[in-house]
Amino acid sequence: MLTLAVFSLLLHFAIQASSPLDQVFHYIDEHQDDYVQRLKEWIAIQSESGNPTKREDVIRMMQVVGEMIKHLGGTVELTDVGNEEFADGKIIPLPPVVLGELGKDPNKTTVGIYGHVDVQPAKIEDGWSTDPYLLTEKDGNLYGRGSSDDKGPVLAWLHAIEAFQALNQELPVNLKFIFEGMEESGSKGLDELLKEKNETFLSNIDYIVISDSAWLSKKPALTYGTRGLCYFLVEVQCANQDLHSGLYGGTVHEAMTDLIALLDSLVNSTGYILIPGIDSDVMPLTDEERVLYEGIEFNLEAFKRTLDITELLHKTKEDVLLHRWRFPSLSIHGIEGAFSGPGAKTVIPAKVTGKFSIRLVPNMDPDKLSSQVTTYLHGVFAARGSPNRLRVALEYGSKAWVTNFTDKQYDAGRRAIRKVFGTEADLIREGGTIPVARTLQHTTQKSVMMLPIGGADDGIHSQNEKLSRNSYINGTKLLAAYIAEISQF
Amino acid sequence: MLTLAVFSLLLHFAIQASSPLDQVFHYIDEHQDDYVQRLKEWIAIQSESGNPTKREDVIRMMQVVGEMIKHLGGTVELTDVGNEEFADGKIIPLPPVVLGELGKDPNKTTVGIYGHVDVQPAKIEDGWSTDPYLLTEKDGNLYGRGSSDDKGPVLAWLHAIEAFQALNQELPVNLKFIFEGMEESGSKGLDELLKEKNETFLSNIDYIVISDSAWLSKKPALTYGTRGLCYFLVEVQCANQDLHSGLYGGTVHEAMTDLIALLDSLVNSTGYILIPGIDSDVMPLTDEERVLYEGIEFNLEAFKRTLDITELLHKTKEDVLLHRWRFPSLSIHGIEGAFSGPGAKTVIPAKVTGKFSIRLVPNMDPDKLSSQVTTYLHGVFAARGSPNRLRVALEYGSKAWVTNFTDKQYDAGRRAIRKVFGTEADLIREGGTIPVARTLQHTTQKSVMMLPIGGADDGIHSQNEKLSRNSYINGTKLLAAYIAEISQF
Repeated sequence: MLTLAVFSLLLHFAIQASSPLDQVFHYIDEHQDDYVQRLKEWIAIQSESGNPTKREDVIRMMQVVGEMIKHLGGTVELTDVGNEEFADGKIIPLPPVVLGELGKDPNKTTVGIYGHVDVQPAKIEDGWSTDPYLLTEKDGNLYGRGSSDDKGPVLAWLHAIEAFQALNQELPVNLKFIFEGMEESGSKGLDELLKEKNETFLSNIDYIVISDSAWLSKKPALTYGTRGLCYFLVEVQCANQDLHSGLYGGTVHEAMTDLIALLDSLVNSTGYILIPGIDSDVMPLTDEERVLYEGIEFNLEAFKRTLDITELLHKTKEDVLLHRWRFPSLSIHGIEGAFSGPGAKTVIPAKVTGKFSIRLVPNMDPDKLSSQVTTYLHGVFAARGSPNRLRVALEYGSKAWVTNFTDKQYDAGRRAIRKVFGTEADLIREGGTIPVARTLQHTTQKSVMMLPIGGADDGIHSQNEKLSRNSYINGTKLLAAYIAEISQF
Repeated sequence: MLTLAVFSLLLHFAIQASSPLDQVFHYIDEHQDDYVQRLKEWIAIQSESGNPTKREDVIRMMQVVGEMIKHLGGTVELTDVGNEEFADGKIIPLPPVVLGELGKDPNKTTVGIYGHVDVQPAKIEDGWSTDPYLLTEKDGNLYGRGSSDDKGPVLAWLHAIEAFQALNQELPVNLKFIFEGMEESGSKGLDELLKEKNETFLSNIDYIVISDSAWLSKKPALTYGTRGLCYFLVEVQCANQDLHSGLYGGTVHEAMTDLIALLDSLVNSTGYILIPGIDSDVMPLTDEERVLYEGIEFNLEAFKRTLDITELLHKTKEDVLLHRWRFPSLSIHGIEGAFSGPGAKTVIPAKVTGKFSIRLVPNMDPDKLSSQVTTYLHGVFAARGSPNRLRVALEYGSKAWVTNFTDKQYDAGRRAIRKVFGTEADLIREGGTIPVARTLQHTTQKSVMMLPIGGADDGIHSQNEKLSRNSYINGTKLLAAYIAEISQF
């Protein structure tokens, strides 16, 4: 019978004898608690880019990211991308974009890694089971705002690099980092920066990889397309101050009545968008394309069960996925300026701003869509004969992105997935919007791939966002494996 | 030429020689800064009855009122009226009702005074120019939440009494006080209390007077009717958690889409309520009644100008007033659970609750209306074929109130107005809801009159609520004059 000491010794030799990448995997497994601890520190920074009062937190988050890249031996520029101006005239600085560089060996492949460390707003009152900014582990899941979208994946990249270095393995690629803090708010300032840096910082990048999305099922995935997004504000004003519904109800054209009618004119109960002209801009679906969807692993019943939904807008797996990735959708998010608290308030709000967004697919264009939406809503409003003031504004817009998934980088992605998970990758799209994928591809004309590590049920943008410990740790291995694979091209 | 000293002496004699009521008026003028200071202390207490987190403030406010009545020599009971239960199962105590008594002379008339010291919610972010809970005087106006509705008027009563006492004038009536802290939230607990106290505390009251409304114009007014109120909640739930609009948009029946359609089915652009069956419950308007409206002072242009409104729902003074007082109206106040903050959030809210209310007129009945609304909304929802969960609830309901304005109390009111303002009173109604007027009249079968002191432009329930210093001080005189006049009946 082996003693424990002898067993440990044999294990030690086994590791020594294993491949360099296996050693990296082992190191990652051994250090997972450190990785969780560092994620906890990052989650604690409330870097909500959509909330102007938290801008300082976003800026601090960018500094933390920059420091970590420096710690890995990289060089970092915290790039000023100007200010953000609000409707009320307030101007605050945009968070800097972190441009980092690690390695300049002309014989190595250079990989550009994009990620973001800002988050969607979150409050415990929204219905979180735990403080959204205190990473909490439960049943193998790491709960916290940004755990999956996108602080966990960004940390996974940095930890993968750290693992190579800790084992004194030479990093087989040069790396360039583009980490931003405005992704959840339209990536303001980034497009201009990327254009500006195309001939310098971006010029020698060979491949761009983005880990900011999720698998569709339990099967690992590579993502070759995302939908675009146009976020609209519809503001109606009826008076110069909120009014008492007893004193003024029945005498004034209420802004809320107009706004509700405008919002109700956007989409019908089947999810069909009622704004004229959109259909003709959607790239027609081919039979070949439809066939692709049949092979993808996706359990419709599990999908519904997780959300406690009895019936979806569409019946088959293929139709659901097509409407999630391949067709536009419209969601009404809420109203600013109306009564939104608990209890009862008998107010006629003076100025209300409806917020809705449309997910774009090829070949929809944000400017054209904005003009279609504006014309349509002004028409609906005119038909009401209301004397109130209407303003329709496109808050931000980005096109969809789709790329060729048969190139070398996708090969490297497939091989990395095989190595870590022992299975083939599903080739999927993303219903959400990562505009930078399209921007990076268009600006650099290089291959862009999304290599997700998050789970389908991570609840990003929602209450109780989480990343499982497994996704986090195996994801870190996957990114390390990708680095090893892409270095061979 | 008279020296200043001699002038002062003559003034002194003139006051000595003036009527006792004139002396009260003079005393009120002299002490107005004290009255403003006390209003400031009351405004500082954030007694929002609709906000469960501020319940302690409401309870403290009730104690302050009780102490002040005791200070005037009255006896006070802080009457427990039970608990409030919320949809989420939370139970908190209702604020006590202050029942006070001052004077028990069987040869004197006994007047019941009703008022409330809770307020509508207010936050500086709603668009107030000053802190809503810091009374701020500017251009002769006293700005602060509750200044006009209804802390100022309640204090005016107590100061009027204090003035009689300070001058050692015997109070010519017995007084009973009914001051509550849930008026802005459906007067929960009050109806039962009044019924319970009808044979005891309320039994020997001769007249009931309420100072909780406003003049219609610059002309003083007596109010003989109020509209009722039914406050409805419409809750739609589509999933067990908020969803990301990119990941789920196009696949799920969104709760917001359903809710917006439900809210849009309630009222059309002319303000007409679309819920079937309501019209037939509205007491038909007679020609005699319409004529009454012609004599009332009301400047339509000034009304629009104050609110910066170009066009009202109706064209003539009479029609505007009829739709403000005599016909039902529906207002949509807001949505709880949807995104309501600044900026952009791409969420599909899982559970949203629309809040709207209908102002009731004779002979509408809250229970019948609730059933009409519920049936109608469930019908609209069923027609959509949505699998989501709908819940329609009546948060609270109260009937309209109209009384005979030719009785003795209204005579006393008219005479008091003549004495203080040297003009005739306009006989008006109130578009808002003071359910206690009806409850008190129905329970006690005594004359109920509303004797407002607030101005038409006080902005109650709105940003920058105010009471002018003139209204506050002359209002205090009016209430003193009323006490003197009613004592003669």
